[in-house]
Amino acid sequence: MTLSNISIDGKRLLADLTKLREFGTYKTGVHRPTYSKIDMESRHWICERMREAGLTPEIDGVGNVIGRGEGDGPRVLLGSHTETQPYAGWLDGALGVMYGLEVARAVGHGVDVVSWADEEGHYSSFPGSRSYIGQFSEADIDAGRNKYDGISMRDALAAAGLAGRPRIAHQPGRYLGYLEAHIEQGDTLESTGEKIGIVTSIVGIWAYRIAFEGVQNHAGTTRMAIRKDAGLAAVKLIAAIDALFPTICAERTVWTVGRITLDPGAGSIIPGGAEVMFQIRDADPDVLLKLQNALETLVAEANLGPCRATLHNVSRSTPSLMDPEFQNALERAAERYAPGLHQRMPSGAGHDAQWLARVMPSAMLFVPSIGGISHHWSEDTSDEDIVLGCQVMAAAVAEILGR
Amino acid sequence: MTLSNISIDGKRLLADLTKLREFGTYKTGVHRPTYSKIDMESRHWICERMREAGLTPEIDGVGNVIGRGEGDGPRVLLGSHTETQPYAGWLDGALGVMYGLEVARAVGHGVDVVSWADEEGHYSSFPGSRSYIGQFSEADIDAGRNKYDGISMRDALAAAGLAGRPRIAHQPGRYLGYLEAHIEQGDTLESTGEKIGIVTSIVGIWAYRIAFEGVQNHAGTTRMAIRKDAGLAAVKLIAAIDALFPTICAERTVWTVGRITLDPGAGSIIPGGAEVMFQIRDADPDVLLKLQNALETLVAEANLGPCRATLHNVSRSTPSLMDPEFQNALERAAERYAPGLHQRMPSGAGHDAQWLARVMPSAMLFVPSIGGISHHWSEDTSDEDIVLGCQVMAAAVAEILGR
Repeated sequence: MTLSNISIDGKRLLADLTKLREFGTYKTGVHRPTYSKIDMESRHWICERMREAGLTPEIDGVGNVIGRGEGDGPRVLLGSHTETQPYAGWLDGALGVMYGLEVARAVGHGVDVVSWADEEGHYSSFPGSRSYIGQFSEADIDAGRNKYDGISMRDALAAAGLAGRPRIAHQPGRYLGYLEAHIEQGDTLESTGEKIGIVTSIVGIWAYRIAFEGVQNHAGTTRMAIRKDAGLAAVKLIAAIDALFPTICAERTVWTVGRITLDPGAGSIIPGGAEVMFQIRDADPDVLLKLQNALETLVAEANLGPCRATLHNVSRSTPSLMDPEFQNALERAAERYAPGLHQRMPSGAGHDAQWLARVMPSAMLFVPSIGGISHHWSEDTSDEDIVLGCQVMAAAVAEILGR
Repeated sequence: MTLSNISIDGKRLLADLTKLREFGTYKTGVHRPTYSKIDMESRHWICERMREAGLTPEIDGVGNVIGRGEGDGPRVLLGSHTETQPYAGWLDGALGVMYGLEVARAVGHGVDVVSWADEEGHYSSFPGSRSYIGQFSEADIDAGRNKYDGISMRDALAAAGLAGRPRIAHQPGRYLGYLEAHIEQGDTLESTGEKIGIVTSIVGIWAYRIAFEGVQNHAGTTRMAIRKDAGLAAVKLIAAIDALFPTICAERTVWTVGRITLDPGAGSIIPGGAEVMFQIRDADPDVLLKLQNALETLVAEANLGPCRATLHNVSRSTPSLMDPEFQNALERAAERYAPGLHQRMPSGAGHDAQWLARVMPSAMLFVPSIGGISHHWSEDTSDEDIVLGCQVMAAAVAEILGR
């Protein structure tokens, strides 16, 4: 195994990222919702950059931007996504797409670049990467709806000028694999002072809706002893989860109550209904199953109280393993450019790579997030860390391509 | 003290209540929002009934319907309210207004009848009775806004044909006092098998907004150890209230969390903010103060955790005492018509009587609520209990008037 001496151009990379930030600037971050006017302008700008890098760009029928090179020989696909969460950070997926562009320029032949559409899920769940691997049907497009304004995905695609365009599908055999860089979005690297995370797996997310049914009544005239307060039942269950889960979880397990809704939600009415959105994430399916069993027990115990509690599974994604050989290549490159300052780690967030991994070897590289902040306009990574991460990616890609 | 032999006409009373239910029937209940078309139709219908009963009806500039008799001699004011909560019960305040009408017919001279506007607070807090006692200014009308659809109180009054009408004000000396009948809205009478509640006081309601400030972050990439989950902080405080308050409250104290809001309220985002609407009710100001002190301590303890908790007082009403002589008159009448089946009790809900009590002796009588249910279309009271309550009210009024 020889290590190539390919070098990226850090200034050029930072200039591209800074230019991309101008599409929808919000404070020091970006507001660039999928298929919005500014999002489409940014996709056309990416096409120009791809063309300059010697790639033939195409925006397909679901909004994926793919820049492909000509000729034979081993080839990899690099990328991520460029739309953002509302009023969110400038790096997030943009970093991985601009890394792809810079690596294509630095490594040359053999690197295709992609910006997957709507990884942030404005209209659906990973429509871009799922479309590419053949797991997003026309019916899925029909069903897509913007979660903020309710606009249908079809209408949004038409307004973006994409109606009727073909969708690009994976060609088996074209690529050795897929590599995606991303900011960590957590503080693990920052807290250890490390610079590169080599992703071992992308966690499974098991999400639940927990519904509570009590009896709505007057908050002044109903004695405490006879109340069937659905909101209180919900609070007690969440408190029980908070007490139990730390004693049975794995090292990196996380769980979150993202929403609590009381019905009707008025100050002087005892809630007759309550709903809790809850999710668990772990890279190990056995851990997920163990926690789900514990959750089921807690819900059963809640049913011994005055309200009825029911557990509904909303989604259950399988943890996705990253390719071991790609991980090794990334680790060798990391050790060369950031000796001792890298670690293998699971990804707590979902990424397009989890879908690409179903059709080809896939891997991910993380760079540090300042303060662990993401999905907020203040999200940032130091210039040095941005450049270092791209150099590591370029070196790994060069090794994979046999340069 | 002689007890009069005045008898009410139970059939006529039930026929009136049944007719009034037709204005906005919803299932077995009523949907009759303040100043709506159907609400105004019902107010005009009440005017007709008042006129038949020998009273001169008037709808004033805030929507109060008052029927006044001519001549001298002692006089009392009887009533309640006739608009309803959304899709709520047919009795609630309607019972007290129809009692007033029936007592006016049975007792004759000396009984004025009123339906106060918007006791249910669609636009403001007790605008009808507060207007009458001079505690609801033109600026208060300007500030009134429908809490469901945002329509201004001015626009609603204009649409109801009430713009520019004078508002009827209390004339000191006109009345010996005010009496209001109401369904209990709780299950105290039903659970003891009693028929009449004689209200000793209307509870004070101390309402709070408890705000929690944490750090919004990604639900997948942020380790549990470093989270500042505002939603979890809110849940822990509510659970602590639930553990502590039963050990320090009074016999009839009630407290309620009516709403919990997590910000931003998405499944994959750790809430950076949370807000809890909380209220405590008791007839004893010392009990309210003790519980508020305990709440302040719990909030201070919550601040030892990773999030900042702040307690904001939203409102703090003083418990309102009912007139002892009127209570005695109601008790004598109750003992005559329902011997042994009555009790003195505080009102856990607010009522117009708490405002009238500021300008004249006031009292309230409760009849049982089936299942303790109120503010729901299934709210009900047996015909026998409805008729019995009115007979007790009539006898008490006759005694107060010296008949």
